[in-house]
Amino acid sequence: MFIQNCWYVAGWADEVGADNFLKRTVIDVPLALWRKASGEVVAFEDMCCHRGAPLSAGRREGDCVRCMYHGLKFDDSGACVEIPGQARIPPNTRVRTFPVIERSRWLWVWMGDAEKADPSLVPDTHWLDDPQWRSLQGYTHYDTPYLLIADNLLDLAHLPYVHPTTLGGSEDYAATQPRITMLERGVHVERWTLGTAPPAFVQKVKPFAGKVDRWNHYDFLLPGIFVMDSGMLDAGHGAPDGNREGAAMFHGCQALTPETAHSTHYFFAHPHNFAIDRPEVTRSIHQSVVDAFEEDRTMITLQSRSLALRPDFRMQPIRADEALGRFRWLVQKTLKEEAASREPSPAIA
Amino acid sequence: MFIQNCWYVAGWADEVGADNFLKRTVIDVPLALWRKASGEVVAFEDMCCHRGAPLSAGRREGDCVRCMYHGLKFDDSGACVEIPGQARIPPNTRVRTFPVIERSRWLWVWMGDAEKADPSLVPDTHWLDDPQWRSLQGYTHYDTPYLLIADNLLDLAHLPYVHPTTLGGSEDYAATQPRITMLERGVHVERWTLGTAPPAFVQKVKPFAGKVDRWNHYDFLLPGIFVMDSGMLDAGHGAPDGNREGAAMFHGCQALTPETAHSTHYFFAHPHNFAIDRPEVTRSIHQSVVDAFEEDRTMITLQSRSLALRPDFRMQPIRADEALGRFRWLVQKTLKEEAASREPSPAIA
Amino acid sequence: MFIQNCWYVAGWADEVGADNFLKRTVIDVPLALWRKASGEVVAFEDMCCHRGAPLSAGRREGDCVRCMYHGLKFDDSGACVEIPGQARIPPNTRVRTFPVIERSRWLWVWMGDAEKADPSLVPDTHWLDDPQWRSLQGYTHYDTPYLLIADNLLDLAHLPYVHPTTLGGSEDYAATQPRITMLERGVHVERWTLGTAPPAFVQKVKPFAGKVDRWNHYDFLLPGIFVMDSGMLDAGHGAPDGNREGAAMFHGCQALTPETAHSTHYFFAHPHNFAIDRPEVTRSIHQSVVDAFEEDRTMITLQSRSLALRPDFRMQPIRADEALGRFRWLVQKTLKEEAASREPSPAIA
Repeated sequence: MFIQNCWYVAGWADEVGADNFLKRTVIDVPLALWRKASGEVVAFEDMCCHRGAPLSAGRREGDCVRCMYHGLKFDDSGACVEIPGQARIPPNTRVRTFPVIERSRWLWVWMGDAEKADPSLVPDTHWLDDPQWRSLQGYTHYDTPYLLIADNLLDLAHLPYVHPTTLGGSEDYAATQPRITMLERGVHVERWTLGTAPPAFVQKVKPFAGKVDRWNHYDFLLPGIFVMDSGMLDAGHGAPDGNREGAAMFHGCQALTPETAHSTHYFFAHPHNFAIDRPEVTRSIHQSVVDAFEEDRTMITLQSRSLALRPDFRMQPIRADEALGRFRWLVQKTLKEEAASREPSPAIA
Repeated sequence: MFIQNCWYVAGWADEVGADNFLKRTVIDVPLALWRKASGEVVAFEDMCCHRGAPLSAGRREGDCVRCMYHGLKFDDSGACVEIPGQARIPPNTRVRTFPVIERSRWLWVWMGDAEKADPSLVPDTHWLDDPQWRSLQGYTHYDTPYLLIADNLLDLAHLPYVHPTTLGGSEDYAATQPRITMLERGVHVERWTLGTAPPAFVQKVKPFAGKVDRWNHYDFLLPGIFVMDSGMLDAGHGAPDGNREGAAMFHGCQALTPETAHSTHYFFAHPHNFAIDRPEVTRSIHQSVVDAFEEDRTMITLQSRSLALRPDFRMQPIRADEALGRFRWLVQKTLKEEAASREPSPAIA
Repeated sequence: MFIQNCWYVAGWADEVGADNFLKRTVIDVPLALWRKASGEVVAFEDMCCHRGAPLSAGRREGDCVRCMYHGLKFDDSGACVEIPGQARIPPNTRVRTFPVIERSRWLWVWMGDAEKADPSLVPDTHWLDDPQWRSLQGYTHYDTPYLLIADNLLDLAHLPYVHPTTLGGSEDYAATQPRITMLERGVHVERWTLGTAPPAFVQKVKPFAGKVDRWNHYDFLLPGIFVMDSGMLDAGHGAPDGNREGAAMFHGCQALTPETAHSTHYFFAHPHNFAIDRPEVTRSIHQSVVDAFEEDRTMITLQSRSLALRPDFRMQPIRADEALGRFRWLVQKTLKEEAASREPSPAIA
């Protein structure tokens, strides 16, 4: 069961060039994404309506796609425009298509009712292509359910334990209390840690002489979008909404997209706004994040395997679970609402 | 659910030598095939009746087989003739055997009621060992249900799309209408394509200067046997049952044998009757077919994966599906008849 | 369904050093075994009670373990003693622990009710560390249910067939009748084979000039522990409980530990009490056993795959199955008793 009516990140924009197909499965639906001559991206279900053959193995013919199994041809609306050996094309001969929005280097697809596809629901991740910020693009694949990764991002107390040599600093970080507030479609988390050790990934590119005041403020939005304002400056100078002079600042953007119930796509970048003319700084930050996300993946994959072995395992909640508990509640509530809206209306007595 | 009362190809005759066992699973039943001193092939269930150990790991002792787990010995009828440490052999101590017919290089096994095993039901594939024809033998393994491969063979409109550089010619081929007739145990398809481009696999061995008239006539028989009379000659000279002088002629023989519900054995050869004294021609034709069947396997494997992800996917029929639709109907009808014949007769009131 | 109230071998003692964790799954429960400063071994469920993260990826802090996901810390009783950012620790915040006994190089864990963990139920395998005996330690992993391996050990008639060049001698061995008696928690098997060929593994280290009298006496105990007094001496000199002068003697110790319903850990050693000052003899014997157990693994893995394909396969019992039939009966009886003891007591009317 996945949320249908929301925008999922299906890929990085440059994964779809002028001529290729991007084959990617999103919430159990295989997709073929391709780009029209105008540059607009189209998302087809990657199954010819005839026998389910992969259209991503098809042939581009202008702004049409021909299935290379039996030769059916479809226009960019998904309508079949040619069936070899058959003059009449029944009107329901069409491939399923999905609304796509290309914004800030990400391709967002709407997997539910197309009429409900509201572009204003695409989260703001403009730091990905803002000229004042720099980042490299990352992707990794998890063989775990997406919610275990969401849990991870919703409790950053794991930073010093999982990432001691990359993103994490000293362990006092885990003791600070984040402020958590509900959003209409997500959770907002604010965390200030004062007088803590700067993490290694920052020391490599913008070293601090002593302790720092560090903030991590983020939205975690349906279906699994993480957008974080974070940074640090010399200890004693930090304060909520206050001075950020001399700070190392980041605006991490991450997107979890379930592939199946048991596997997940993970798109990420970690934009910074200092030393933006030094590509080696961008590369160093990116590599630290890549390394750190491998640390997460190792932990979460082991966790997932144990949970699969022990379906009766009961998790013992702690205070730090507040944000993830709220997000899981929101997911369940949204799934229930979507299920209810699909049921037939009761007859009027 | 598989059809039981029919002949399945279990292997190429030379896969069973004087001393070895051929281990092969057919419709979920592991088989051990071996050859008696007389040359006759025996098909045992590849499970010792004692504990299910593989008899294909056993030892030949004349026309008997000894299980090399605990030493039980069986004669060629499957009857146990020795149990170490035990004088009395209960009469039901026997391995299951299956009727086998070796004909034209193929080993046919009957998986259902042995009494119903009618040799006259073995399809005619004599081109495989007719001295006027030449071919090499092919085998490939699919991780897909066999019916998806049957679908492929029952609609050759796929030739120009899937096989543009091997078996297919120009795309007009796909527009021609085959004539389809039902057979008692299969479907007969006749297709003439006039004035079409000759396919690459023929141009390599018997080049035509211009367009050709091409025919593909075949039976597709239960459980999944494809026997095709095909060929081509200079355009303007072809006609049903007419002149074949100067034609390149082939008699393809192919057999689909389900291994399990999700995997399939595929045996094939493509006999030709020209240049039969030139082994390089036979090799070239064979290699083209091998390459082409890899093209099919790629397409069908992708199709199968998508269908597994989307169990609710509804295929949209087109006119070209007529033959495959009829064959699938015949399979379902046969399965129902077999299921009905297994049910106890109703009591007489 | 596994027997809970018994001692399973979880590992060789030296697999748990001063600083590491041994991660091993026993009857579907992932375990993390570690050693306190005192040397005592502790068995934790390898799942932090918070979110199920692997404690085997944790950090030792004295005789405590810190989960390296979110930093919870547990003492050797499994009680949580620290939650970062949280002063109060609810009393049920604890990791599940299991009784462990380290004896004769094996680590025994009790997976059921801790109150029932009776150390006197640990089978005697003192030959593993008796200074008069020598052996090397072996381990292999099976992708099969453990009972198929138990069957193998409960009918040594397989020795000459499966192991003709390692453990087995001539095939007359299979015809001798073992004496089988029930034990409270297992089966006892005694087998004398007189005037039989000595097996290759003995000929390599202690050659006999002619035939031998050979004995194999063993207990096979719940849950799957094999302890064997075996050996051979010049033919004509052997007799039950009689003269063993000049004999080659062994005391094989083997333990089957189900990992999951479909996979098994196999721990083994084959102590000998002759030439104990010649390490090459010990190595030779060990290598023969390793080779032989690979022969078993090949056979049993093939058997297991066939049985999985044919769930309706009926095994045909023979006389040699007596011991394995009795042991399987004992397993079923024990499982039923455990199931009954878990049911609520009926209300008193």
